[in-house]
Amino acid sequence: MTEPRTTAPALAEDPHPELHMTSSAMLQDIVIGLSDGLTVPFALAAGLSGAVASSGLVITAGLAEIVAGSIAMGLGGYLAGRTEVEHYASELDREHREVREVPEKERAEVDELLADMGLSEATRRQAVAELTADPEQWVKFMMKYELGLEEPDPKQAPKSAITISLAYALGGLIPLSAYFLTSSPTQGLAWSAAITLVCLLVFGYFKSRMTGQPPVAGAIKMAVVGALAAAAAFGIARAVGG
Amino acid sequence: MTEPRTTAPALAEDPHPELHMTSSAMLQDIVIGLSDGLTVPFALAAGLSGAVASSGLVITAGLAEIVAGSIAMGLGGYLAGRTEVEHYASELDREHREVREVPEKERAEVDELLADMGLSEATRRQAVAELTADPEQWVKFMMKYELGLEEPDPKQAPKSAITISLAYALGGLIPLSAYFLTSSPTQGLAWSAAITLVCLLVFGYFKSRMTGQPPVAGAIKMAVVGALAAAAAFGIARAVGG
Repeated sequence: MTEPRTTAPALAEDPHPELHMTSSAMLQDIVIGLSDGLTVPFALAAGLSGAVASSGLVITAGLAEIVAGSIAMGLGGYLAGRTEVEHYASELDREHREVREVPEKERAEVDELLADMGLSEATRRQAVAELTADPEQWVKFMMKYELGLEEPDPKQAPKSAITISLAYALGGLIPLSAYFLTSSPTQGLAWSAAITLVCLLVFGYFKSRMTGQPPVAGAIKMAVVGALAAAAAFGIARAVGG
Repeated sequence: MTEPRTTAPALAEDPHPELHMTSSAMLQDIVIGLSDGLTVPFALAAGLSGAVASSGLVITAGLAEIVAGSIAMGLGGYLAGRTEVEHYASELDREHREVREVPEKERAEVDELLADMGLSEATRRQAVAELTADPEQWVKFMMKYELGLEEPDPKQAPKSAITISLAYALGGLIPLSAYFLTSSPTQGLAWSAAITLVCLLVFGYFKSRMTGQPPVAGAIKMAVVGALAAAAAFGIARAVGG
């Protein structure tokens, strides 16, 4: 849940060499799942610790959240991936059709894109002729530079869904484990906060290094998000249910 | 939480005319917040309904989840947006420096990008000369076509954070409202499921229309994600805490 999907473009398309060298699609999915899994179940459990007397209830609610979140994230991600594949296919069809049926309009669009890049009229005339000589290449150019679409890998969606779900569940079990091992929600909360904040710091550090950001600042940011979410959840749960 | 950030590229960069015509950045943020807000708090509350005897507990946990999720999502999104702005600025600096210090290498990169598009050597020679004549335009070209980066609006991050948080909270209060208005968790669950599934169908329908996808299929997908997440949360909560 934590960061909205606006993180993804940066992660997914970030061509920063450090990212390209060290991270794969799977690593990115693990980061997505862990970011949310470490934060929200932690905050929910912390919130309930301020309102209920039994660790069992915190664990029940925490596990329900982990299951709900990991299914919503995994299945939602799978469907979004499928939609992306379908969207690409339908746009590809449309470009093929347009190149066939309104070639003059499409040629003008190529010219406009090249003008946008800063090419002179003479160079554009030559470039447009070359780019539109072969319909396949012409369509490929439109897909990439007019629409900004890269062909998605249809096998990626199910793989991502499973990785993200598992990473979310794993992340969520870390803060929850403290409640299994202690006898009261108060004790559970103290240990849970300690373990989770350390994990958020470590995770934020490596996540930032992976994406080429300052790692110490990234570690602190990650821990602050978790701590604030937990503190707010604690406050509201105590006010309502305490 | 639902869909991982992989949704965002499609939403954010989707140049499909229907999207461009009808949706703004704010509308996209509302969709992101509502998708998650309608799903996860609904599933958590449904899960707890199978395990606890008091509606008050479901409400406490639900509110804690809503607060935790909306802070994690909003604050996480804000920080991710800030990171994107910083990342763009640092890449811009780097490109300026490279154009100044290793112009031959950068010129070769421009040539390679143009070859990738499918331009002939003669056209490329001319195009490279034009694109690299003005350093500002040269850097702009590298940012957009080599790195695939568009300049982010620094004011967007705080706006998005607030919109997503509020949409998440609003979405989460819909399934939870049923527990306020009924006397037992079982009754609450029945009404919550009815209200939320209708909302998921309506929301899925409009979300799909907005992004140019088949709306009826989109409505069903959205409802299925919510229903499965809720059923799984119900199952685990009953097994653990019931």
